[in-house]
Amino acid sequence: MTATTQATGLFDYLLALGDDALVTGQRLGEWYASAPGMEEDIALANIALDQVGAARLLLSYAAEASATAMPARADGPLPFVHDGPLDEDVLAYLRDDRQYRNVQLAELPNGDFAHTIVRLLLLSAYQKLRYDTLAGSADARIAGIAGKARKESAYHLDHATVWTVRLGDGTDESHARTQAALDALWPYTTELFAPDPQLADLTEAGVAVDPPSLRESWTAVVEPVLAEATLTVPDTAWTPGGGRRGMHTEHLSFLLAEMQSLYRAHPGASW
Amino acid sequence: MTATTQATGLFDYLLALGDDALVTGQRLGEWYASAPGMEEDIALANIALDQVGAARLLLSYAAEASATAMPARADGPLPFVHDGPLDEDVLAYLRDDRQYRNVQLAELPNGDFAHTIVRLLLLSAYQKLRYDTLAGSADARIAGIAGKARKESAYHLDHATVWTVRLGDGTDESHARTQAALDALWPYTTELFAPDPQLADLTEAGVAVDPPSLRESWTAVVEPVLAEATLTVPDTAWTPGGGRRGMHTEHLSFLLAEMQSLYRAHPGASW
Repeated sequence: MTATTQATGLFDYLLALGDDALVTGQRLGEWYASAPGMEEDIALANIALDQVGAARLLLSYAAEASATAMPARADGPLPFVHDGPLDEDVLAYLRDDRQYRNVQLAELPNGDFAHTIVRLLLLSAYQKLRYDTLAGSADARIAGIAGKARKESAYHLDHATVWTVRLGDGTDESHARTQAALDALWPYTTELFAPDPQLADLTEAGVAVDPPSLRESWTAVVEPVLAEATLTVPDTAWTPGGGRRGMHTEHLSFLLAEMQSLYRAHPGASW
Repeated sequence: MTATTQATGLFDYLLALGDDALVTGQRLGEWYASAPGMEEDIALANIALDQVGAARLLLSYAAEASATAMPARADGPLPFVHDGPLDEDVLAYLRDDRQYRNVQLAELPNGDFAHTIVRLLLLSAYQKLRYDTLAGSADARIAGIAGKARKESAYHLDHATVWTVRLGDGTDESHARTQAALDALWPYTTELFAPDPQLADLTEAGVAVDPPSLRESWTAVVEPVLAEATLTVPDTAWTPGGGRRGMHTEHLSFLLAEMQSLYRAHPGASW
């Protein structure tokens, strides 16, 4: 493994971490002004801000890492052509959907409130466990970002846990909606733990987390919550995925279109 | 002045304070996911959250105050019929536009980024000075809320100041856009300082601030910023207003329709 190979891997890995957070934050932010109450409106907006804040730190580091990664690829380190200085805004606003590296679970539409809460449960448990491990990363910058983000993720997970139980073990209608959300979202959780051969070097170096290694602890966190919420884990053989390789649902391109339109029209708002 | 008369005045005054913050927060939240950069996205969302957070405290107190105000009006203290327990959500989500008490400046559409920034400058300077005075209110609950909100407003004002100068004293296009924003918004500032006879009792009791009393200090804050931004205060005789009496532009009803739809469909999200 050469230094540049590892730097390329680092760049891609930071995109994966950052894109999970950025896309999750955008989706949660869509609830703004339409949540089922002021308290929940404020809570979801705060969680969205945590996610976008973490994404900003991760993409900012990715932008720096790309400089080292430069020689490693014949086509350059970036999945797009860019002439100016590279920063987190360029990475957030100028990549197309095929260049995003988030898991598909993050990009699915919000659906109803139960759907949003169940997705947050599944994702925040994953993010928390990943950040827990990354807080001890051999890469000090990642360790620092993860050390902050793990505390935020723990709050996100608590919030989603309380609501999942309240909705699942609530009225007949809230139970039905929450079970329907779990049925729809569960297949997308397989991707969270898919092996990623490109991560082998970084994992061996203690920089990254091997995704399959998180499955057992994730199950130990999520399944008791679902049980308390009287929800049944669906039995399904369908396992969509591919987000880490840029294969996304159509929903991501609509999300990016809204998020990127102003920046692309007025880069840097410098008018 | 009877206690119930003062309580009714208090209820109305808290609505005015809370609605200014709530509507401002909703408008700023609309920038979420479409701001001209990640840093600004996060900043505007944080300001929006401060505003909605302050609104929640103010409307929560208004809901409590309405109990005392009950006997004071033949038609009840509330501008609408409501059977269940009254809380901040009921006040936020079940009032129609004619029952909102915010100034019209808060409800105008965001327009472009310059427009949003100039509006924030004009409004946050007003809110900060109002909260500064209210931090010494004879009503301890108002004093507590204002004591917290004034610090947040000071940050909002700083943020708007930096951007107003950057845009106004920037490129030709940014200057033109910022001047156009000021021209469009300035007439709505008259309403901020309109005398309100209904506030006389509360002002005399040291609970509320007399709106005209804020004009001089507001001008001393705002005009130097506009001058540094090379902007010209427009000379206009048109002075729209009436928001405090429930007279609003058509824009408020669209804002409320989006904000209230889920709550009205599923009150309390209890399904």
